[in-house]
Amino acid sequence: MSHAPVHPTGPPAALGPAEARRRFRAGLGGPTAGWAPGHTQANLIAVPADWAYEMLLFCQRNPGPCPLLDVTDEGSWTTPLAPDADLRTDLPGYRVWEHGELVGEPDQVRELWREDLVAFLIGCSFTFESALTAAGVPLRHLEQGRNVPMYVTDRPCRPAGRLHGPMVVSMRPIPPRHLSAAISETAVMPAVHGAPVHCGDPSVLGIDDLGAPDFGEAVDPHPGDIPVFWACGVTPQAVLTASRPPFALTHAPGQMFLTDVRDEQYRVA
Amino acid sequence: MSHAPVHPTGPPAALGPAEARRRFRAGLGGPTAGWAPGHTQANLIAVPADWAYEMLLFCQRNPGPCPLLDVTDEGSWTTPLAPDADLRTDLPGYRVWEHGELVGEPDQVRELWREDLVAFLIGCSFTFESALTAAGVPLRHLEQGRNVPMYVTDRPCRPAGRLHGPMVVSMRPIPPRHLSAAISETAVMPAVHGAPVHCGDPSVLGIDDLGAPDFGEAVDPHPGDIPVFWACGVTPQAVLTASRPPFALTHAPGQMFLTDVRDEQYRVA
Repeated sequence: MSHAPVHPTGPPAALGPAEARRRFRAGLGGPTAGWAPGHTQANLIAVPADWAYEMLLFCQRNPGPCPLLDVTDEGSWTTPLAPDADLRTDLPGYRVWEHGELVGEPDQVRELWREDLVAFLIGCSFTFESALTAAGVPLRHLEQGRNVPMYVTDRPCRPAGRLHGPMVVSMRPIPPRHLSAAISETAVMPAVHGAPVHCGDPSVLGIDDLGAPDFGEAVDPHPGDIPVFWACGVTPQAVLTASRPPFALTHAPGQMFLTDVRDEQYRVA
Repeated sequence: MSHAPVHPTGPPAALGPAEARRRFRAGLGGPTAGWAPGHTQANLIAVPADWAYEMLLFCQRNPGPCPLLDVTDEGSWTTPLAPDADLRTDLPGYRVWEHGELVGEPDQVRELWREDLVAFLIGCSFTFESALTAAGVPLRHLEQGRNVPMYVTDRPCRPAGRLHGPMVVSMRPIPPRHLSAAISETAVMPAVHGAPVHCGDPSVLGIDDLGAPDFGEAVDPHPGDIPVFWACGVTPQAVLTASRPPFALTHAPGQMFLTDVRDEQYRVA
């Protein structure tokens, strides 16, 4: 995993999601944290129709890591979450999977999108980062221009048919005085992973080394920061590895689908 | 629809869900509002496996009326929501559907449960009635010993494959001074329908006569009460009528599945 930031100057804060998608469609890559602030970002996983029921059931049974925002009709690459978007081209980076193996990381999948694919759009913790920033919570990965670090845990998800695998989490180092705000702000957004699954000792989740994330990039905590872990929408990629369906397309970790939906729509009360 | 209350003395408030299910299994019928207070109640719909994907997708696309609490494995009649329960016998009343027609209302469905059935347990507004009562909001149907009234609206749900149909709502007359509490208490429970879909004029939802509900029983409002409408888990039964799958089993409206789960588990933040 390269640690060179793809956007060395940071995301263009004033850009809306439609213009951001246009740039990604034109070939721009890199993590989307901080892009189109205030608009909901989504994880993508597309599987053949004969695996769609199990994927849908898996998401229903694991709403923490896999909160579903939308499911497309078979063969369709459009979604009401961003009516003018093309799911085959409008993400900055994709991954291609065959029998659980990562076989490619193209910047678009127009030719790979099959007639029998069903796409799942899953909530992303980037969505609550606007709320955290507004509440004064510092986000180290944004400060350091890096992708958020993600880790495969030793906690199994609840299986659904042939699909099984461990939960993946994202981690943000949080100063103790901001911990309460970080928890309460995210608890009211269950559609984008909700409250943290754990705060503190990473070994509780089976994570040995915070400096060696399984996805994304390591971030440097400030002295006293507490590692805080949220269920992560990259979980389906760990499920692909464990369950080995013949074919799947996903986003590249951290390189999300930007929707037109406002974050507030996923805030409860 | 009979207006004779089945529990003339009201539900036994001290009874837990396991004992309540035992009584229903032994043959007791009637609406479950007020039973096992503090424990989550659920709507049931079981469809053949070749309709399960569309039902699951329908629920995902219509989380207001159809918030999913659990989906069973094919052929199974058990659920983690109440590990010792039998979904074939433990509800007070069932309905049997063939090609969209209601063909029976038995008090158990042990012989009708097929190997290919998948059961969906959907959140129920009875779950938030404990919170409303705790907040001092009067509930007229409980005061009057009646089933809650439910109405088919003119609002279409978002279809999923062959499944389509209108949203059903439950209605509670609320005194204006309690309206704010009624809305805010339910808004934080999206897994059991969340905030009302409408307050006031029923014609906005295409409802002509509050005195003639499509399911349940009419209730008598007090002077000044405002009719408040919540999305209702009987919606799948209206979808059966509209979409006509060959076979389905459901609960009888108002006669819910009592789970062991505490209502607080479905309260956000």
